[in-house]
Amino acid sequence: MKRKLLILPALLLAGMTFAQEVDLKAIEKIKKEGLENSKVEEIAFQLVDKAGPRLTNSEGYERAAEYAVKQLSDWGLANSKTEAWGEFGRGWEMEKSYIAMTKPYYMPFIAVPKAWTESTKGEVSGKVIFLDIKTEEDFAKYKGKLKGAIVAIKPSGTQEPTYEADAERYTAEQLHGMEHPAPREPRGNGGPDRAADFRAARALSQKINEFIIAEGPALIVKGVNGRHGTLFTSSPRDYAKGTPVGIPELETAPENVNLMARLSENGVVVELEAEVKTRYRNDDLQGYNVIAEIPGSDPTLKSEIVMLGGHLDSWHGATGATDNAAGCIVMMEAVRILQATGLKPKRTVRIALWGGEEQGLHGSRGYVKNHLGDRETMELLPEHEKVSAYYNIDNGTGKVRGIYLQGNAAVAPIFNEWFLPLDDIVDDRTITIGNTSGTDHQSFDALSIPGFQFIQDPIEYRTRTHHTNMDTFERLELDDLRQMAVVIASFVYNTAQRDELLPRKELPKKQ
Amino acid sequence: MKRKLLILPALLLAGMTFAQEVDLKAIEKIKKEGLENSKVEEIAFQLVDKAGPRLTNSEGYERAAEYAVKQLSDWGLANSKTEAWGEFGRGWEMEKSYIAMTKPYYMPFIAVPKAWTESTKGEVSGKVIFLDIKTEEDFAKYKGKLKGAIVAIKPSGTQEPTYEADAERYTAEQLHGMEHPAPREPRGNGGPDRAADFRAARALSQKINEFIIAEGPALIVKGVNGRHGTLFTSSPRDYAKGTPVGIPELETAPENVNLMARLSENGVVVELEAEVKTRYRNDDLQGYNVIAEIPGSDPTLKSEIVMLGGHLDSWHGATGATDNAAGCIVMMEAVRILQATGLKPKRTVRIALWGGEEQGLHGSRGYVKNHLGDRETMELLPEHEKVSAYYNIDNGTGKVRGIYLQGNAAVAPIFNEWFLPLDDIVDDRTITIGNTSGTDHQSFDALSIPGFQFIQDPIEYRTRTHHTNMDTFERLELDDLRQMAVVIASFVYNTAQRDELLPRKELPKKQ
Repeated sequence: MKRKLLILPALLLAGMTFAQEVDLKAIEKIKKEGLENSKVEEIAFQLVDKAGPRLTNSEGYERAAEYAVKQLSDWGLANSKTEAWGEFGRGWEMEKSYIAMTKPYYMPFIAVPKAWTESTKGEVSGKVIFLDIKTEEDFAKYKGKLKGAIVAIKPSGTQEPTYEADAERYTAEQLHGMEHPAPREPRGNGGPDRAADFRAARALSQKINEFIIAEGPALIVKGVNGRHGTLFTSSPRDYAKGTPVGIPELETAPENVNLMARLSENGVVVELEAEVKTRYRNDDLQGYNVIAEIPGSDPTLKSEIVMLGGHLDSWHGATGATDNAAGCIVMMEAVRILQATGLKPKRTVRIALWGGEEQGLHGSRGYVKNHLGDRETMELLPEHEKVSAYYNIDNGTGKVRGIYLQGNAAVAPIFNEWFLPLDDIVDDRTITIGNTSGTDHQSFDALSIPGFQFIQDPIEYRTRTHHTNMDTFERLELDDLRQMAVVIASFVYNTAQRDELLPRKELPKKQ
Repeated sequence: MKRKLLILPALLLAGMTFAQEVDLKAIEKIKKEGLENSKVEEIAFQLVDKAGPRLTNSEGYERAAEYAVKQLSDWGLANSKTEAWGEFGRGWEMEKSYIAMTKPYYMPFIAVPKAWTESTKGEVSGKVIFLDIKTEEDFAKYKGKLKGAIVAIKPSGTQEPTYEADAERYTAEQLHGMEHPAPREPRGNGGPDRAADFRAARALSQKINEFIIAEGPALIVKGVNGRHGTLFTSSPRDYAKGTPVGIPELETAPENVNLMARLSENGVVVELEAEVKTRYRNDDLQGYNVIAEIPGSDPTLKSEIVMLGGHLDSWHGATGATDNAAGCIVMMEAVRILQATGLKPKRTVRIALWGGEEQGLHGSRGYVKNHLGDRETMELLPEHEKVSAYYNIDNGTGKVRGIYLQGNAAVAPIFNEWFLPLDDIVDDRTITIGNTSGTDHQSFDALSIPGFQFIQDPIEYRTRTHHTNMDTFERLELDDLRQMAVVIASFVYNTAQRDELLPRKELPKKQ
């Protein structure tokens, strides 16, 4: 597919008619509303600052969902509600997190309790023992020595100075390179050795966990990656109800843990004091999405659906501004724009803000299974053939630079046409046949319902915000969010007005 | 002055004789020792990690000074000792620092107690009141409302994403631009209005302080500048003995304080809990430098002195790796190299590691006053005419790219000659007639003793490390420290061997 670099001024475009389907007057209304009357800053305040961290089934997630349900309803959407998608597990709240080195000198550390970790028994203190376990033989070094101790584990990464900017936007050249992605290597191409290595590493990791739990230290201080006060949180503890008690764990800035490691390795006794207090929420183990609709205005087409969404849950180390309040802000703003313009889409527009994405796309997968079909049995539900497309945002705060087709070549000319009247706000628009993965459009794509993520400028997503303690309001580029909302509202509107549903890829075989 | 870009391979240089004074064989020995047998990593561990934060008159400063005295002595330097330079004030230790938002949800904050701040009365908690005082009339808003409260002050800067790299090295073009600095505008050129504005702002700031102390809040939470978990500490509380009790103060990450500010401004009640525990050290109010010497080998010239140094004190939010353990590491390594090569300089080489620099160049000023002369009375001491030069490092971890002449044009051809055999390790060597300020060479320059700072690559000095909570071991570029030590050892050696003392600028007039 070839990228068209045609750039036309908006005023000129407004007077043109494109083949078949783009209602340019509608697009101009969307732009005007989205760029001149934007509400993204207000929505951002509500989802990011006021709701706070939105770990699945936490109070913050509930606050955000309550706000979204009410706000969408206030904008006139129908059927605005939370909807259970199945059992997730327990919620979890952080009530205290403190850690400091006390010997050889006092130094407060930067840390975040591992998600779903247990509490310490009040404030714990004492000498730090570094764990360095490479094989099961290493267990002997520590056997019987960890009871009640504070154990530390070094981070894997390094923290040398950074000669590249934290924030970046794609160049035209980088985008061009995405148009024809190198074919992915077939799965499992690492060969039997690599697969075996992976299984062995996982088995060892499991044994190390069991060993540590059996030895019963008071606290695990795990050095994670990051730098300069930013730290990346890692996979959570098990959140299933009734998970056996483990060892409290603090994910700690690598500079802090490496300081202790260098001291220990040079024979200096290191002591810490720390307190972690957390609380589980076992009352309701169901997971919830937020759903609301703009009912279609066309008597025939209103039974068909255009979906848009993003995940509402976040990690717990910060307020999840770019991962993924950004996507929810944009999607909420997109439906607000459609309402405010009075455009009355022919098909029904349905917004979904997902829970449980960070733990495995649970909310969108559950939704698809409940409403559209079962990927495992390939039993499809009636609505499966009614959903024209699902549009997702989950790559941070950067504006739209194009779209990933997820291998659905038939939509390329359609999207190309839809991007043309947006050329004044989408620089170097790029349409790639390639896939992007790791988020909720995959739940739809798995059943060949056209599900798309947009190409977004990376900004600080990989360097500073994705799963970090620094994913805060300051990291939002509000102008980018405004642009995204206009693009999404346009795509959703065009999808709702199009004569046909979007073309689909062939249905996959039963798994 | 013109920069010579002549680059000659080291081997070729080794066989050449330069006009007058460069002993190329000696320089080759220095390079070999400094680049092949470097001890900068060991020295860095001792000063940075093991000594820890080195606030003037703190235990960390004492640990670092003790190590340096012993290490310099072990390398065979004479007269290695700490030397009091006059009264500084009390020492200060941090014993606990904890702050977290507890309402509307729990969020641990990143903060550093303001240097020399008081302790809170145990753990304090409660609602946060933001102070926004622009004139004395604003006092009325808060009068009688702050007693026992937690007050917060917003940071002045902003924290948008960063599209420039944290770390940088000078380009040849940037260095070229330094050669002919724009003339400094004369002091006080802001004119009477600006000076009056400045005095008014300072007077208001003083009144605000007095107002806050009189109102008696339990804690001040001051948003400082920085981003992504890095925060810049600011000027300290008064460290004089017997300073009246003030209000405990935590310098807090701007993202944290701005979160509370946005919540408060939108009517959400914000509560905090915090504890600050500090301890003053009143036993010995003297300030100390570390001094050691390589006695000169020439019977006539040994009474003359070449000095090198850097400040050993740091701020307290981190381990002061680049500000200024780096300078001390380099200077210690430079004298170690001179000892290890057995070069036996003709003049006496004296290393000085200063205390109290961060509070006003106190250590070097006191030293100069005690040994060389009084800037105010212009009464000079006998040693004033004996010190050929003082070389200083205090601009972080970046390697040497040239030198500031501090207006002493007569040394330009000499330094140019000295840089030539270092061309293989000093890229785009630049000699500028310009000044650099803010550190200890000024104490010497003030009495026209040739005092110099080198031009260093900035790396992360301004963005991440200078006075921050993230000035840690990881921020050191060890290869750069090695290069610096070779350059300094060469310059010191050349100064010690030169027929004459370095040319001086005219003596300043009595102040």
